[in-house]
Amino acid sequence: MTIREPVGCTVNVPEGVMAGATGRYTKTFGELEALYADRQAFAAMAPSMRDSVVYEVTEFRPSSATGDLIFGVTRMAPGKVGGEFFMTRGHLHAKADRPEIYYGQSGRGVMLMESPDGETRTVVIEPQTVCYVPPFWIHRSVNVGDDDLVMMFCYPADAGQDYEIIARSGGMRLRIVDDGSRGWTTIGNTNYRPRTQQECERLLEPTR
Amino acid sequence: MTIREPVGCTVNVPEGVMAGATGRYTKTFGELEALYADRQAFAAMAPSMRDSVVYEVTEFRPSSATGDLIFGVTRMAPGKVGGEFFMTRGHLHAKADRPEIYYGQSGRGVMLMESPDGETRTVVIEPQTVCYVPPFWIHRSVNVGDDDLVMMFCYPADAGQDYEIIARSGGMRLRIVDDGSRGWTTIGNTNYRPRTQQECERLLEPTR
Repeated sequence: MTIREPVGCTVNVPEGVMAGATGRYTKTFGELEALYADRQAFAAMAPSMRDSVVYEVTEFRPSSATGDLIFGVTRMAPGKVGGEFFMTRGHLHAKADRPEIYYGQSGRGVMLMESPDGETRTVVIEPQTVCYVPPFWIHRSVNVGDDDLVMMFCYPADAGQDYEIIARSGGMRLRIVDDGSRGWTTIGNTNYRPRTQQECERLLEPTR
Repeated sequence: MTIREPVGCTVNVPEGVMAGATGRYTKTFGELEALYADRQAFAAMAPSMRDSVVYEVTEFRPSSATGDLIFGVTRMAPGKVGGEFFMTRGHLHAKADRPEIYYGQSGRGVMLMESPDGETRTVVIEPQTVCYVPPFWIHRSVNVGDDDLVMMFCYPADAGQDYEIIARSGGMRLRIVDDGSRGWTTIGNTNYRPRTQQECERLLEPTR
């Protein structure tokens, strides 16, 4: 049996990337239209912003085995569509009982979390904040600051991502918006459709 | 079914601790005598150093379930016994196929790793270095700097620790010592007894 080689990666906080990563992906403004409430504001920004990278992820994936770990760095640009702050697509883990930790490196963010039955929580992430997202919480990060939001993350290698769960319910129950005095607040998402009892029960099944 | 609450913890890098932790432990100089080669140097330091904390860990343990994550912060004081730098006891995970990641926050360290059959690797950990310790590597951190070594860590919640494996082989195969010009180097540990083929095979069995 051959065991794998140890690795040292370096996080470049100002650039928001990790050297030594095995993979990288980006999401552009144009790919994220469905996330925002204000379609008019989005359309006005699109011509100049369509190909701008809203967020990028550099990650190290040693394997997808149960018990292994994936880690990396995410960088999200600051910005708003109407009053709504830039955000990630968000996901639940495909194995919904897998958690994730995020560790703030620069900027100011909010981790928006939603349980299958629509409970909502927020954790503010500043440099040196560790946010533990427990099993079964849908989660999305939001940049509520004026600068890049840079976070390190780590999650179980067998977790997987369900990116469709948010779209299926018409978005998350809450939106994170400008409060008009350089802060943020939450407002209800009028498109939100609660998940059925049956869907909630299915999501809460252990997946060991 | 009740799902657990999200958590935000704060890493205090200058103090080397994490606020919001569920547990803390320390190791004093007096508890670590067996680690060092130079018994005379240890004895000379012991009267003044016996109760000094060499390293402390503050950690968040949400559960011990497969797929969950434990994370926290470790702080190690700088120092040497003879020419040998301060180090942790070191361990292999009780489920040996579980990895660990360490993320340097301040100071300068070396992660010393050893495979069951005695292969050795080192990774230098400085601020913003992520060290991935793959499954099956015995690992110990060593403070080779002049200041506290502070690292964040994360590992699978079902990993457990086997702290005896190093003692059973008379220590790790290499020691990390002062190179005489403000750096570090490795020297052989004359007490080291290689593990048997049978022991190696047992350790390399998957533990899913």
